[in-house]
Amino acid sequence: MGSDSIVRDPSLAPDGHRKIDWAAEHSPVLNRVRDEYLKDGTFEGLGVGVALPIEAKTAYLTIVLAEAGADVSVASPGPFFVQDDVAAALAERGVTVYASSEADPLEADRELERVLDRVAGGRDAVLIDDRAGLTRLAHTTRKGLLPRIRGSSEETTSGVAKFRAMEREGVLEFPTLAANDARCKYLFDNRYGTGQSAITAIMQNTNLMMGGKRLVVLGYGWCGKGIARYAAGLGARVSVCEVDPVRGLEAYADGFDVLPALDACERGEIFVTATGSTDVLTREHFERMRDGAILANAGGVDVEIDVDGLREASSGSREVRRNVEEFDLEGRKIYLVGRGLVVNLTAGDGHPVEIMDLTFAIQALCAHHLANNGHALENRVHLLPKEIDDEVARIKLDAVGMGVDSLTSEQEEFLAGWRE
Amino acid sequence: MGSDSIVRDPSLAPDGHRKIDWAAEHSPVLNRVRDEYLKDGTFEGLGVGVALPIEAKTAYLTIVLAEAGADVSVASPGPFFVQDDVAAALAERGVTVYASSEADPLEADRELERVLDRVAGGRDAVLIDDRAGLTRLAHTTRKGLLPRIRGSSEETTSGVAKFRAMEREGVLEFPTLAANDARCKYLFDNRYGTGQSAITAIMQNTNLMMGGKRLVVLGYGWCGKGIARYAAGLGARVSVCEVDPVRGLEAYADGFDVLPALDACERGEIFVTATGSTDVLTREHFERMRDGAILANAGGVDVEIDVDGLREASSGSREVRRNVEEFDLEGRKIYLVGRGLVVNLTAGDGHPVEIMDLTFAIQALCAHHLANNGHALENRVHLLPKEIDDEVARIKLDAVGMGVDSLTSEQEEFLAGWRE
Amino acid sequence: MGSDSIVRDPSLAPDGHRKIDWAAEHSPVLNRVRDEYLKDGTFEGLGVGVALPIEAKTAYLTIVLAEAGADVSVASPGPFFVQDDVAAALAERGVTVYASSEADPLEADRELERVLDRVAGGRDAVLIDDRAGLTRLAHTTRKGLLPRIRGSSEETTSGVAKFRAMEREGVLEFPTLAANDARCKYLFDNRYGTGQSAITAIMQNTNLMMGGKRLVVLGYGWCGKGIARYAAGLGARVSVCEVDPVRGLEAYADGFDVLPALDACERGEIFVTATGSTDVLTREHFERMRDGAILANAGGVDVEIDVDGLREASSGSREVRRNVEEFDLEGRKIYLVGRGLVVNLTAGDGHPVEIMDLTFAIQALCAHHLANNGHALENRVHLLPKEIDDEVARIKLDAVGMGVDSLTSEQEEFLAGWRE
Amino acid sequence: MGSDSIVRDPSLAPDGHRKIDWAAEHSPVLNRVRDEYLKDGTFEGLGVGVALPIEAKTAYLTIVLAEAGADVSVASPGPFFVQDDVAAALAERGVTVYASSEADPLEADRELERVLDRVAGGRDAVLIDDRAGLTRLAHTTRKGLLPRIRGSSEETTSGVAKFRAMEREGVLEFPTLAANDARCKYLFDNRYGTGQSAITAIMQNTNLMMGGKRLVVLGYGWCGKGIARYAAGLGARVSVCEVDPVRGLEAYADGFDVLPALDACERGEIFVTATGSTDVLTREHFERMRDGAILANAGGVDVEIDVDGLREASSGSREVRRNVEEFDLEGRKIYLVGRGLVVNLTAGDGHPVEIMDLTFAIQALCAHHLANNGHALENRVHLLPKEIDDEVARIKLDAVGMGVDSLTSEQEEFLAGWRE
Repeated sequence: MGSDSIVRDPSLAPDGHRKIDWAAEHSPVLNRVRDEYLKDGTFEGLGVGVALPIEAKTAYLTIVLAEAGADVSVASPGPFFVQDDVAAALAERGVTVYASSEADPLEADRELERVLDRVAGGRDAVLIDDRAGLTRLAHTTRKGLLPRIRGSSEETTSGVAKFRAMEREGVLEFPTLAANDARCKYLFDNRYGTGQSAITAIMQNTNLMMGGKRLVVLGYGWCGKGIARYAAGLGARVSVCEVDPVRGLEAYADGFDVLPALDACERGEIFVTATGSTDVLTREHFERMRDGAILANAGGVDVEIDVDGLREASSGSREVRRNVEEFDLEGRKIYLVGRGLVVNLTAGDGHPVEIMDLTFAIQALCAHHLANNGHALENRVHLLPKEIDDEVARIKLDAVGMGVDSLTSEQEEFLAGWRE
Repeated sequence: MGSDSIVRDPSLAPDGHRKIDWAAEHSPVLNRVRDEYLKDGTFEGLGVGVALPIEAKTAYLTIVLAEAGADVSVASPGPFFVQDDVAAALAERGVTVYASSEADPLEADRELERVLDRVAGGRDAVLIDDRAGLTRLAHTTRKGLLPRIRGSSEETTSGVAKFRAMEREGVLEFPTLAANDARCKYLFDNRYGTGQSAITAIMQNTNLMMGGKRLVVLGYGWCGKGIARYAAGLGARVSVCEVDPVRGLEAYADGFDVLPALDACERGEIFVTATGSTDVLTREHFERMRDGAILANAGGVDVEIDVDGLREASSGSREVRRNVEEFDLEGRKIYLVGRGLVVNLTAGDGHPVEIMDLTFAIQALCAHHLANNGHALENRVHLLPKEIDDEVARIKLDAVGMGVDSLTSEQEEFLAGWRE
Repeated sequence: MGSDSIVRDPSLAPDGHRKIDWAAEHSPVLNRVRDEYLKDGTFEGLGVGVALPIEAKTAYLTIVLAEAGADVSVASPGPFFVQDDVAAALAERGVTVYASSEADPLEADRELERVLDRVAGGRDAVLIDDRAGLTRLAHTTRKGLLPRIRGSSEETTSGVAKFRAMEREGVLEFPTLAANDARCKYLFDNRYGTGQSAITAIMQNTNLMMGGKRLVVLGYGWCGKGIARYAAGLGARVSVCEVDPVRGLEAYADGFDVLPALDACERGEIFVTATGSTDVLTREHFERMRDGAILANAGGVDVEIDVDGLREASSGSREVRRNVEEFDLEGRKIYLVGRGLVVNLTAGDGHPVEIMDLTFAIQALCAHHLANNGHALENRVHLLPKEIDDEVARIKLDAVGMGVDSLTSEQEEFLAGWRE
Repeated sequence: MGSDSIVRDPSLAPDGHRKIDWAAEHSPVLNRVRDEYLKDGTFEGLGVGVALPIEAKTAYLTIVLAEAGADVSVASPGPFFVQDDVAAALAERGVTVYASSEADPLEADRELERVLDRVAGGRDAVLIDDRAGLTRLAHTTRKGLLPRIRGSSEETTSGVAKFRAMEREGVLEFPTLAANDARCKYLFDNRYGTGQSAITAIMQNTNLMMGGKRLVVLGYGWCGKGIARYAAGLGARVSVCEVDPVRGLEAYADGFDVLPALDACERGEIFVTATGSTDVLTREHFERMRDGAILANAGGVDVEIDVDGLREASSGSREVRRNVEEFDLEGRKIYLVGRGLVVNLTAGDGHPVEIMDLTFAIQALCAHHLANNGHALENRVHLLPKEIDDEVARIKLDAVGMGVDSLTSEQEEFLAGWRE
C-alpha cells in the first residue's frame, strides 16, 4: 500500500516523519481509541478514502487507520493545504497519497477522484470527508462507485451543511455522519482549535501586537466565538458582525461591540471571517477599510473574502512578508494573510495537536461506525451515537488526569420525575 | 382586580413601587414587546396565573400583562422568594397576589392553588410557571381546571425537565412551552444572569475576596458556566465537578480543574451548586471540607445542598452575618449562604434587570403565543417559534445601539446548496 | 477604656460584635502579626489615635491594638462611613469611639480633634490616619499636642499626597509613614480591594448587568486598574480617562478605549471616578451624558464628582433605590450611587476582609514601627522598611498554603555582578 | 558607511529589506520621533554603537539613526539572535554590521569589540547596549576608548542590573541611561511584548494547545506577569514561582497557584523562565519533571535553564521539530524550545513591531539625550527624563487615535495642597 502515491518530493520524507511522530506522541486519545476499538478487524481490507489537509495530525489519523487494516488513500481539498514533507512521509507509511503543494488548484477534484477510484474501485469503502468534496464527487462524477460506499463522515460545519442540503434534495445515496456535530468535535475543534490557531497564525505571520488592536470577527458561531475569546484574552478590542441576532446578543453580553459589517470596516485593524458563507468581505467593504487593514479567513469555505474582488480593486499587489500579500487601493494598503484560505492551515501548522487528537478520535470512530453499520443506516445525515461521543471525552479527561462523577440512582430518579 | 390579594404588610407598598419603577425603566425590551405585540386584545379577559419569585422584575411582568387586559394572579414558589414590599405594591397595581415572606414553606402549594382557582375558575387561562409548580398542581390537585388552561410556559431548566418527564409519561393535558429553552432565555438568564447575581450575592453577603479564592462549581451547564466565568473574571481559582464528560472537558479547556466532588471538597473554599439535581453536596462531602468552607446554591432546585444533613452533622448553628448561617462540625465551621435556596434570590435581588427584561419579554410572548395558539397545539413540550425568539434579540440589540446584518440572497443560495 | 465613647445607639452592639467576629476570623495575617510582633510591650500605655471608616475590619484593627495595651481612640472621616452597630460594639470592646452615622458632616473635624485630645493629651501617641485628617488637625488646631505625637501612618493615596505636600512646604512636625505605599498595601487594597468592592457595590445597589455595559473609569492608577479589570472580567466594555499618558497607554494595551472625559461622557452608561483629584465629573460632563447614566466615586477624595454642581443642574432629585439618587436634568436622568463618597463604603461593606487583613497587618506594624522608632526618624515621609513589608506577604502566602523560593547564594552573586 | 560590514550572505538582502520595510511602516512613534527630534544635527558625525539582536525592528532603529547622520555600527549579543537576511539588508542601508548566525557563540565579544573600535575609534560615540555587553567591554578590553564614549543606554532589566552593580563598585567611567526603566519601555516591552511573543513562539513551534495546559512561569516581574496573563487569557492553568513574596502574593491574587519551583516541577507541562537570574531550572528540577515537559526561557539571560546540566542528565537528544530539542532522561522526555536562549528571538520573530516601535523611540531618544548631555551627566545610572518618556506615550496614543486629558490648574492646586 502507499506505493501508487503521487507526491512532490519523496526526499522530504524525514522531516515529515518527525512531524508525524510528534503528533503521534501527543495523541493519547486516538492512541487509546486505536488500542481499544479499531483493532477488531472492522477495517481489514476495507477502503478508506480521506479528504483532509495534508499535515502531521491528519497524516497520523490515516496511519492509524492503515495500521488497523484499511487500505487508506488520501488527497487534500487543495494544494495550499499540503505540506509536501508530510505527504512524502505518509507515502512511506503505507498510505496512498495524491497530493502536492504545487498542483493546480483548479484540478483539486482530480486528486479526490483518484482517491475514490482507489478505495471504492472493487472493494467496500468509507469516506472521511472535508467540505463534502468526496461525497459530492461520488454523487456526480463517480456515481458508479456509489454501491461500494458504506457512508461518509464530515469534518466541517460547511460540509455538514452540504450534507443536509443533499438530504433536503433527496439525493443522498449513502448514509452520512456529521462528525463535525459530535460535541467532542465542534465544542473543541471549532472553538478552541480555530481560536488559538487562527490568532497565532495572524500574530506569527504579521509580527503585530494583539493588545489594543481593533479586531473584527465576522461570524459568531463556534469558530468566531473562539477567535473573539482568545483575541480578547490577548488584549484586542473585539467587534463582532453577525446575521443571527441571538448570536449577536451573545457577543454583546460577552463584552464586544456588535455592528453591521460595513460599519465595522471603518474601525477595524484586523478582520477575521468565520461564517461559512460567501462574500462576507467584498469590494464595498474593502473600500471602506482603513489604510493598513489586515484580512484573514478562518472559516470553512474559501470564498468568505472576495479575493478576486480585492485583486480587481487594487492597482497592484506583492508579498511583503511570508504569507502576507499587500494590495494597493489608491494609496491605502490592505494586507491579506494566507491567501484568504483557512489561515491556520495555509499560514500555520493547523489546529493544535491535542485538539486534532480529539477530532480524529471522533473521526476514526465515525469511520468505524460507518464500516460496521453503514448498510443498516438510512441515507441521511446521522449523528455519532452519544455514548461514543461521551466515551471520547472520558478518555481525554483521563489522559489529562481529570475526572467526572456519575449520577447516583437517586439522582437519576429525581431528574426523571415530576411529582414532588 | 388585585383586590383579593393576601400580602404581609400593605404599608410597605411605596418601597415596592419604587423598585418596580426602576425595573420598568430598565426594561426596554419588554416595554417594546408590550407596545408592539401584547396590546392586540389577546389578553382581554384572559386569566394569567404566574408562579415566580416576588420581586421587582417579576412584578413588572405581571403588571404589563395586567395592563394588556389579563386578570393576573401571582404566587411565589416559596416564602423565601417573596419581597413583601413588592408584593404590597403589586396588589395596588391591579394584580392579585398571594404571597408572604412569612408563609409556612410547607404550605407553598396552597398559594399556587389559589392562583389556579382564581385564574382558571370560570375563564380560560394560561400559566407562567416556575419549576412546574402550577402545572404539577393543575395535573394533580386541580384537575377540574384543566379544560380552561390553554397551556403553560416554564421559566427554569428544572421545570422544563419536569415537563418532559410528564410528556414521556403521557400525562400532559395541555400544551407547554419551554420558555427556558428559548435562546434569548437560557443563553442569557441562565449564564450571565445566574453568573453575575450568584457571585455578587456571595461577595456582598460574606464580604470575602474572590481573587485567589478556590471556588468549586458543581454543574457546568449554562448556569455553572456563567458562575465559573465570572468567578474566574474576578480572579478566583475555579474547579468544576460534572457528571457529563463533554461538559467536563469544556471546563478543562476553559482552564479549570475538573474533578470528582469528593476530591474537590478537600481543596475548595467556596462551593456553588448549579446542577438542577438532588443531593449534590451531602454529609460525606461536608465531612471532607476544610474549616471555613462556604456553601451556596445557584441551581433551580432546593435540594442540591442537603441542608438537613448539614444540620444533623452539626453540633449547632447560628447566623453570623445576614443570610449567612454557621454550622459547627466538631470544630470545623461551614457557612451556608442564603439557606441553600437559590442564593441570588434569597440573599440578593435576583438576576440583573436587563437579563430579566429579556427573559420576561420571552415569557410575555410565550403567554401571548399560548393564549392564541394553545388550543391548536399538541399536549407536549413546544419551543417558542424561532422568529419570535430572534425578534426579541433584535429588539434588545436595537435598544443598546447594536445591530446585525442580513444574509444576501446570494448567501442564502450558497448556504442552501451543495454543488460547486 | 472605651467608656467615654459617643455612639449613636449602644443597643446595636450585638450585630456589631457578630460582624467584627467574622472579620477577626478571616484575618489570619493580622492575627499572626499580633501574636508575633505586637505583644512585646511597645503599645503598653501608648495612645493610638485612629481615623478610619467605622466598620468591622477597621474595628478589629483597633481591638487588636487595644489588646496589645494601647489606649485606642477612633473617629471616622465622616458620618457616612460609620456603621452604628460596629461603633456600639467597639465601645464595648475597650476602644474609645467618637462616631455616629447621624453626625453633621461639617462637624467631622470635631470628632477627630476629640481623638487627638484623648490619645495625645498627657501621653505619647501614634496616629493611624485617613486622608491625613488627624495629621492636618495636629498641625493646625491641635498644635499643642505635637510634642506627644511620635508619628502618623497614612492609609490612602490621597493622604500620602498631603503628607508629601506638607513635607515640601517644610511644615511636618513629626515623622510620617506612607502605609499606603507599602507594596502589601497599594498593590492589593487599592487594586483588588477597590476593584472588587466598587464593582460589587454598583451591581448590588443598581441590580444592573455588567456584561455589555459601557463603563468609564476615570483614573488608571491602582484603584482604576482594579475597577477596569474586574468590570471587564464581568463583561463590561471599558473606557478609560487619564491625565498621565503612560497610564493611558497601559489602558490601551490592556484592551480599553482611552479618551478625554468629555468624549467619554457621550458613550458611557456607568462612570466610576478613581483619580484622587477634584472636579473630575462636573456640570459640563453631566450635560453631555446620556439619559440613565450612573455615577459612582471609588476614589479617595469626596470631590471627584461635583455633587453640588449636579444638584444645581437638576430640577429635582429623589432616592429611587437604597443608596441611589436620581437627578433630573431636563428630562434626562442621572443616577448617583453612594452620594459621591467612596461607594464601597457608603453603599457597601467596604473592601473584602482578606484585603483589609493585609492592609491592617501593615498598619499595625506601621504603628508599632512609629512607636518604637518615631523619635529617631526625621520629620518627613518614610516608607515601612522593606523587610516588614515582605514579612507580611510571607505570612499571607503561608496562610493560604502558598510559598516562595529563596535565592541561592550563587544566584545572589550572579545578580550582584557585572563581569562575565 | 556600512561598507565594512561582515555578514553571512549578502544575497539574502532582498528578504531583509522587505522585513525592515514592514517594521518601518508599523513604527509610527519612531518615525515621528525621527521627524521631530532626531534630525537636529545631534547625530551628525557621531558614532553610535549598537548591541542588539539583528532582526527587522532593531535594524530599522539603526537605519533611523544612520539617516540622522550617525555612523552606526551594530553587532548581536550572540549568533542565535541574528537573522542573516536582515543583516545583509542592513549592510546595504548604510549601517556597519558585524553579525552572522553562524559565528562561534564563544566569539560574540569579538564582534562587539569591533563595534566599539569602529564607532569610538577616533570620534565621539554613544552606545545602545543589550545586557551591558558593549559597556562591559568598554570597561575591560577596550578601556582606551572610554574617553570618547559619552554614555550608554541599556535595553534590558538584566543589563540595567549590571549597570547598577558597576555603579555600586564605583567603576563606571561614563554615564549610563537605564532605557529599560523608562515606563514606556518596561511597562510594555517587558510585559506585553515578552508575554505575547513568548507564548506565540511556544505555540507555533510546538503546535500544542494552551487551553487547560499546566504552565509554570518562573519569575513574576514584568516579563513573567505578561507571560502569565496571556497564557491564562488562552486558557492555560498557570502556576507561578517567585523569590519575592510580594510578587508571589500578586500572582495569588491574580488567580494563580504560587509554589516553590521544585513542587511546581511535579505538575507543570510547560515551563517558562523569566527571572533574569541563573540556574532557575537545574538538574534537580529536570529529575522531578513529568514525561513530555516543555521548557523555554523568556528571560534576559541565557543561563536561566541549565542546558548543560540537562544535556548531561540525558542519554541523548535530537531535534524533533524546528527549534524543539528532545532530551531523553531515562525514558522520560523533556523538550527544550529555542535552545534555552530568549525563546521569542531564537524561535520566533521577537517582540511585536508596535512594542519595539515604542521601545526604540525611547532608545533613539536615549541616544539623543546622551549625545547632547552625556558630558554633563555624572558617571552613574540615570533615567530618561520623565517629560521625554511621557512624550513618547503621547505620540503613541495619538498614533492609535486615543487621547488623554490635562489637569486643570484647580486640580493641580488641589493635588499640591494639604489644607482643607
